Amino acid sequence: MPYRPEGADQLAFLDALFDAGLLIETGVDGLYGRNGLFEDVIARFDELVTRFGRDGRPEVIRFPPGMSRSQFEASGYLKSFPQLAGTVHSFAGDEAGHRDLLADIADGRDWTGQQQATDIVLTPAACYPLYPTVARRGPLPAGGLLFDLQSYCFRHEPSLDPARMQMFRMREYVRIGTPAEVTEFRATWMERGKELMQALALPYELDVANDPFFGRAGRMLANNQRDQGLKFEMLVPITSSAKKTACLSFNYHQDHFGCLCGITTDAEETAHTTCVGFGLERVALALFRHHGTDVAAWPAAVRETLWGAP
Amino acid sequence: MPYRPEGADQLAFLDALFDAGLLIETGVDGLYGRNGLFEDVIARFDELVTRFGRDGRPEVIRFPPGMSRSQFEASGYLKSFPQLAGTVHSFAGDEAGHRDLLADIADGRDWTGQQQATDIVLTPAACYPLYPTVARRGPLPAGGLLFDLQSYCFRHEPSLDPARMQMFRMREYVRIGTPAEVTEFRATWMERGKELMQALALPYELDVANDPFFGRAGRMLANNQRDQGLKFEMLVPITSSAKKTACLSFNYHQDHFGCLCGITTDAEETAHTTCVGFGLERVALALFRHHGTDVAAWPAAVRETLWGAP
Repeated sequence: MPYRPEGADQLAFLDALFDAGLLIETGVDGLYGRNGLFEDVIARFDELVTRFGRDGRPEVIRFPPGMSRSQFEASGYLKSFPQLAGTVHSFAGDEAGHRDLLADIADGRDWTGQQQATDIVLTPAACYPLYPTVARRGPLPAGGLLFDLQSYCFRHEPSLDPARMQMFRMREYVRIGTPAEVTEFRATWMERGKELMQALALPYELDVANDPFFGRAGRMLANNQRDQGLKFEMLVPITSSAKKTACLSFNYHQDHFGCLCGITTDAEETAHTTCVGFGLERVALALFRHHGTDVAAWPAAVRETLWGAP
Repeated sequence: MPYRPEGADQLAFLDALFDAGLLIETGVDGLYGRNGLFEDVIARFDELVTRFGRDGRPEVIRFPPGMSRSQFEASGYLKSFPQLAGTVHSFAGDEAGHRDLLADIADGRDWTGQQQATDIVLTPAACYPLYPTVARRGPLPAGGLLFDLQSYCFRHEPSLDPARMQMFRMREYVRIGTPAEVTEFRATWMERGKELMQALALPYELDVANDPFFGRAGRMLANNQRDQGLKFEMLVPITSSAKKTACLSFNYHQDHFGCLCGITTDAEETAHTTCVGFGLERVALALFRHHGTDVAAWPAAVRETLWGAP
C-alpha cells in the first residue's frame, strides 16, 4: 500500500485499513474499532513521546473521556466550536416513560426526547479538564508546571476520512507559567516534533494554522489566530497531499485559560498556557500509509525507534 | 490506610484517595482523573490479565468509548437499563441558534434544548460493540471464537462511592460458540479469577449475582438471572464489608446476543456467548484499600506479581 499522492483517496485508504483488519467498522463514520497491531503502534508511539518528553519530568494525569459540564461551559469552547461538542444525556423517566421509550424504538420513532443532559460532556481536547484542576491548587510554584496528559476526545464531525475520527486519543504536554516559560517550551517542542517525524521517516511540514471556529464571526477569530501565530501544526500527507493532516499541534493560548480559570504565577500574574498535542490515531495512520500495513517490512530505523530493535 | 471493616466509609476512602493524589476531583461525582501511579497499577493489572489469558490466543480488539446508536438500540440494553445509558448529543443549529445558546449559558438557563442525539451512544460494557462485529463475519469457525477487549464504559449512576464511577475501564474476554464451549470457558475463568485474587492478596468471595434491571418488571428479570446462575461476581470489600464490590464478573448470556445479532456456529446453530469482565479501576481501588497507598510497602508477592520484582 504505497502512498498515493493524487489524494482524495480517503475511501480507498479506509477500505484498505478495513481489509487489513487494522480498523473495524462500527456502522458510524469516524467511529472505528482497532486491532491489536494498530493498538501496539499507538502504544509504541505513545512511549516514544514519553521518551522525548522525559527530561521535563512532567506530572502524569489521565482524565476519563468526559469532563464536568459546568467546567466545560466556563471554558469558552461553546463560543468557538458548538458544532463539535458532545453532551451526554440520560433517561430520567419513570416506568410509564420507559414504556413510551420502548414503543418509540419498536416503531422506529425518535425515542431520545426523554433524554436529559447529565453533568458530563465529552472531552474535546485532552487538556480541557486540566485548567480548573490546576487553578484549584492555588498559585503556581516558581518555574511553573508541566503536565503529561492523554485521553479519548470527541468531536462531532462524521467523515469518511479515516484521519478525521469522532472519537480518538490525544496525548498532550501542557506547560503553564509565564509567557517566556511557555513560549520557550512551545519552541522547543516544534523542534522536537520535527525530530519525531524524522525518527519515524514521515514526510512533514510545520505550518501556521487555525482552529475550525464556528460561523461568520469565527472567520475573524481564525484570522487573528493565524496572524498572531498562536497555532502551528505538523502536517503529514495521509489521505491527500493537497489537504495534509495535522498529526501534532502546538498551541499558545496566551492567558485565555489563565483568565477563565484564575490560574496565577508565583508572582501573582495571570498564567499563560501552551499545549503540544499528538494525534495518536493520526500518527499511526500516517505510519501505515507511508510504510505499509506490513509492520515487519517497515524501515529498520523506524522499527528500531518504535520497538527498540530493527 | 488499613482496611476498615465497619463500612459505609465511602467518603473517607474517597478523601484519602484525593489526599494521596491517586484520584483527582473533576467536580462531578463518579468522574475522576488519575495520577501516574494509579494508572501504572491499572496497566500492571491489565498485563496480568493478559498473562492469565494468553493460552487462549484471543483476538485483540479495542473499541472507542462510544458505539453505534442503532446497534445499541438493537442490543436490548434500553429494555433492561434505560437509566444507565448515555446518549451523545450535539448542536445542529445555525448562527442565530448559537447566539441563543450562548445567551442561555450567560444567563444560567438550560442551554441543552438545541442539542440533538447523534449516531453515537456511550459504550455500557466493553463487549456491546463486539456482537454485531462478529455477526458481520458470518458463521463462526469450528471451535468458536475468543476475544480480548478493553474500553472505557459509561453508566449514569452518580455516586460518592469511589468504586462506582460513571466512566471506568472494563477489560473483557468474550467467548462465542456452542453452549458447551462457552460454559466451560466461564467455569475455567471462575477458577482463574480466584487465582488472580490470591496472587494480589485480596480477600474475595465468588457469588451469584444479578444486573440492576430497571423498574418492577426488572425484579423478575433479576430473579430469573439469579435462579439460572447466569451471573457470578468476584466480590471484594472496598468501601464496605457488608456491601462488597464486584471486581470481576462472569456472565453467561445464553443465546441472547446470538439471537439478536444473528451469530451462528459452524453447525448453523445460534451461538451462545459468555464474557468475563475485569473492573480495572475497582481492582486498583481494592489494592490501594487493602495494601495501602504506599505501593513500595505492598506485600513482596503482590509487587512481584504486578511488577515482576518484589
